[in-house]
Amino acid sequence: MSDAPAAFTEHDHAERMARATRDAVDAGLAGLLVTPGPDLTWLCGYRPTAITERLTLLVLTPESEPRLLVPALEHPDAAGAPGAGALRLADWRDGQDPYAVAAGMLRPHGRYGVSDSTWSLHLLGLQEALPQTAYRALTTVLPMLRAVKDEHEVARLAGAGAAADATYEEILSVRFAGRRETEVAADLARLLREHGHSQVDFTVVGSGPNGANPHHEAGERTIERGDMVVLDFGGLRDGYGSDTTRTVHVGPATDEERRVHDVVREAQQAAFEAVRPGVACQEIDRVARGVIDAAGYGEYFIHRTGHGIGVTTHEPPYMVEGEELPLVPGMCFSIEPGIYLPGRFGVRIEDIVTCTEDGGRRLNDTVREMAFVE
Amino acid sequence: MSDAPAAFTEHDHAERMARATRDAVDAGLAGLLVTPGPDLTWLCGYRPTAITERLTLLVLTPESEPRLLVPALEHPDAAGAPGAGALRLADWRDGQDPYAVAAGMLRPHGRYGVSDSTWSLHLLGLQEALPQTAYRALTTVLPMLRAVKDEHEVARLAGAGAAADATYEEILSVRFAGRRETEVAADLARLLREHGHSQVDFTVVGSGPNGANPHHEAGERTIERGDMVVLDFGGLRDGYGSDTTRTVHVGPATDEERRVHDVVREAQQAAFEAVRPGVACQEIDRVARGVIDAAGYGEYFIHRTGHGIGVTTHEPPYMVEGEELPLVPGMCFSIEPGIYLPGRFGVRIEDIVTCTEDGGRRLNDTVREMAFVE
Repeated sequence: MSDAPAAFTEHDHAERMARATRDAVDAGLAGLLVTPGPDLTWLCGYRPTAITERLTLLVLTPESEPRLLVPALEHPDAAGAPGAGALRLADWRDGQDPYAVAAGMLRPHGRYGVSDSTWSLHLLGLQEALPQTAYRALTTVLPMLRAVKDEHEVARLAGAGAAADATYEEILSVRFAGRRETEVAADLARLLREHGHSQVDFTVVGSGPNGANPHHEAGERTIERGDMVVLDFGGLRDGYGSDTTRTVHVGPATDEERRVHDVVREAQQAAFEAVRPGVACQEIDRVARGVIDAAGYGEYFIHRTGHGIGVTTHEPPYMVEGEELPLVPGMCFSIEPGIYLPGRFGVRIEDIVTCTEDGGRRLNDTVREMAFVE
Repeated sequence: MSDAPAAFTEHDHAERMARATRDAVDAGLAGLLVTPGPDLTWLCGYRPTAITERLTLLVLTPESEPRLLVPALEHPDAAGAPGAGALRLADWRDGQDPYAVAAGMLRPHGRYGVSDSTWSLHLLGLQEALPQTAYRALTTVLPMLRAVKDEHEVARLAGAGAAADATYEEILSVRFAGRRETEVAADLARLLREHGHSQVDFTVVGSGPNGANPHHEAGERTIERGDMVVLDFGGLRDGYGSDTTRTVHVGPATDEERRVHDVVREAQQAAFEAVRPGVACQEIDRVARGVIDAAGYGEYFIHRTGHGIGVTTHEPPYMVEGEELPLVPGMCFSIEPGIYLPGRFGVRIEDIVTCTEDGGRRLNDTVREMAFVE
């Protein structure tokens, strides 16, 4: 694995906040309101110990430098954030009404973008304090804000992808038959950490019929010879996400299992080859779905084809019917078609792909043919 | 440690959902809307793998049995939840508008309570789908919903408290001087897990000047002889929270350090003795603050005196000026006054306390006098 990349600087955060403010104005907004979570970390580098009922709010408006309202007792932590030098800190104390304090920073009739994961408690507090304000979810109004990654971000995502690939290659040598799904999941988590992940977000081990449930995590089922096993795992490394899926088989596979696996692999490949600047996100979904439909398995592909990835493992752009956003160089997203035969087995194959001027570039690139494990 | 308590049953969840619905009606609401998080887990036992942009929504209204709207691909997981037999599951698929589906379950002019941590993305989606609906944050309109614990819940909190106490007693024997805060924090996390915690939420180790920052977590500072060290740690055990703080000293303390520690201990004791049914929450804060004010340290007690605890480690009732809710037997909350001398040191002492008919009962009960460590 490569060394840790240089940390993002105050200058990087200042530029991100300035761009976000410009984008908000261009979208007809009075500004952006961001509470703790990935948007806040990305914009100003501040990541409080916990996300709680106490309001922390970054206010980005064209009429002021960035302002960060924090509970008084978190002031020292906020002052130490990488982007703190590029913003003005303001406090509120327990017993004060934080929404009244925040209202003093907003226009009474303003229309603001608010981070998707902002608690309703906070949004309702702002709506009550300033009844004439209006709000839009950040990804609804500015889906592109974090969607196009710069070269340093793509490098981090590539590093996370390489670590996930190394994890996959090593998991092929562990024992599957006779062990519980949770045991293999623990192996995946350990390997991700060994390969530099600071956080493991999911370790799906869906064996046999459990593989037909796309969001099955890992359970107490004992894996048996003859099982198809979906392995979908990822987390954060150097602050950026990994997410890859391969479907392996314990011992020899049946003809039907091979056929289903081939169909999913062809769908994944076709969708990958469709990636190029200007293509609508929904087109990537249509291409994958077309291959699976043509093979007669359309009704068993029950989710969208992909999602963006960055400082979170699920974010815009979404590769889904109805998403007309065009691909842009620097976008990074999953391509992960699947076929799920209820009560029997499932197959999913997933890579993170980045759009370049010349087409797609995979950030996961382990063998996509069915691997056999013991 | 005791054996794991019996799991909550479908019947328990059905009763909780029925009571929540009644309480909502009594509060003038058309119903409650609950997304993944502690309220959902408490109400129906469902805890999805991840909290994401895909809408999952429990709808509790008097005109219907409980309904749970889930993404189609999470249907199998939801169907396996402990309370699933007491509700009707509904699906939406990628590409559908989940807010339009949810709107079909709501009254166009209804006023609903919505869980505090529901993402703004979802609340704004509902507000847009049904512009005549109105919303209130769940803890604002029904602060008592989860605040009064039944005997099984108090038993779980007592078990979590006993595990935290065992952790404290063992941490007194580890080496402090010459080790980094993060190393002692790792010891705390390990001990909490050894004593049955499934999740560690925080392990504050605030040594010397870091102790004067109440929300300092644990850093790279090397602990030195002569340091005061704030230890504040907790997490979840059998689904319920622990949270306790003691402030220890490395080697002999100065007269001032002893005096500040005594003042905090007296404030904590006085607030504990004030606990009885009918007393307003703010009174607990006033009693603690009164002791600290009288000693001349009022300006250095910069946070509220306490917070409720249950399936989360921060929830109503809050022991804070302005909170007029009366204490009720079964309420469980922290009493945690502190004094923070900027750049020098901090002291905080915290127990979880439950209100009984006869007054307060501590769920943490390790020695509160200053302990000396090496």
